[in-house]
Amino acid sequence: MKYLIRLSYLGTGFSGFQVQKGSNARTVQQVLCDASFQLFGCDCLVSGCSRTDSGVHALDYAATIQTNSLTEIPADKLPYALNSKLPDDIVVHFAKIVSDDYSIRKQVEGKEYEYVILNTKFPSALSFDRTLHYGARKLNENLMNQAAQNMVGKHDFMAFMASGSQVEDTVRTIEYCKVTRVGDKIKINVRADGFLYNMVRIIVGTLIEVSEGKISPDEVLDIINSKDRSKAGRTVPPNGLYLKEVILK
Amino acid sequence: MKYLIRLSYLGTGFSGFQVQKGSNARTVQQVLCDASFQLFGCDCLVSGCSRTDSGVHALDYAATIQTNSLTEIPADKLPYALNSKLPDDIVVHFAKIVSDDYSIRKQVEGKEYEYVILNTKFPSALSFDRTLHYGARKLNENLMNQAAQNMVGKHDFMAFMASGSQVEDTVRTIEYCKVTRVGDKIKINVRADGFLYNMVRIIVGTLIEVSEGKISPDEVLDIINSKDRSKAGRTVPPNGLYLKEVILK
Repeated sequence: MKYLIRLSYLGTGFSGFQVQKGSNARTVQQVLCDASFQLFGCDCLVSGCSRTDSGVHALDYAATIQTNSLTEIPADKLPYALNSKLPDDIVVHFAKIVSDDYSIRKQVEGKEYEYVILNTKFPSALSFDRTLHYGARKLNENLMNQAAQNMVGKHDFMAFMASGSQVEDTVRTIEYCKVTRVGDKIKINVRADGFLYNMVRIIVGTLIEVSEGKISPDEVLDIINSKDRSKAGRTVPPNGLYLKEVILK
Repeated sequence: MKYLIRLSYLGTGFSGFQVQKGSNARTVQQVLCDASFQLFGCDCLVSGCSRTDSGVHALDYAATIQTNSLTEIPADKLPYALNSKLPDDIVVHFAKIVSDDYSIRKQVEGKEYEYVILNTKFPSALSFDRTLHYGARKLNENLMNQAAQNMVGKHDFMAFMASGSQVEDTVRTIEYCKVTRVGDKIKINVRADGFLYNMVRIIVGTLIEVSEGKISPDEVLDIINSKDRSKAGRTVPPNGLYLKEVILK
């Protein structure tokens, strides 16, 4: 029996999604494996739709759980059953049965990330692990959004990939990249067919430097074309980053 | 030198505000004492405007710091200086110098608490320590608000005080008690000249039982008049409770 599940998690307490071989780090995959073992009474195979970095949150992650157990749990009951075995920082909110040859990785058509910046004089004790605090000055969301439009489209995003990454094909298509202000918060929403390592965090760092006057909106295309990581902005921390949506076929 | 400071803190990691004698529990007062010691190089006296329970959050708490240090820090610089010594879950956002005989406890004219309930089918991994999740059914905010109006005014709130509390005068005046829905969230705002131990958490538990049909809105006055804790609703957990405002003279 194979289940497709949808879940949210608070990234703060996890070293990302994926189990790291030879490490005891707490990962979402490991915690899901442990809960499935408790529920089904046997080892289960948990596969995720993508890796997420340490500290990054997810609102609607997709994963599969394959079990050989004789215990059959109806799909509509599975979220409640799993949640009863899971810690508070992971919540399953959907499940359906899929065929045994269903591969979650092959189903992903695109993803949307959201990055949240708290643009206030002082940080917030209530959201330090959920937002990036930026207190130096008021961010110019219009200028940032203007620059963001130059990210849209099919480009080689090598300049927006963490150095040391081993991916060969660095061409991705950004469907949209929007910067909006909601009160004291700046939200950056990026939807693409795929993302390189640290890509959103480098895009956000670059847009902040646009607001700071260090990079002009038009320079974004030059940075993309340079394929040079050092031309793009800094990598912002993971705590403001949310995997907001995973689009499956 | 004595400073009045305003601060916010995330209650999750604290056993309330006040240092508990003979206990090593992490409290806001102790963490403020430690940061002040580091900053001023001497023991400082930290006094809070009220106790808050373990797990309760504060958005605009008021406290004083008294120091005999020769190091004088201008009031407008103090928040930055203190924040540099404080952990992320406490943030000071205001300071001013007050006279040595200023007593913070005597300055408090009233307080407003806010309680936040997440009224969704599944809990949220992103806010499990910031809200109470209520998934059984859709809460009836209109009925709850109708009941809440019977709390308003000057009453003996003994029925809404945790048993075992030693306070003698249990008369308090509630200025307002409002229940509003904001999307999936129910917010309960209560402003009064003072609060008894667990008073807001018992008020909220009672209002939930009104929505559940266990208590009618009109029964609230009977419960108040009974002065009997067992007649009021359950005590809801601290994680949804915020000390939102402290009104000083």
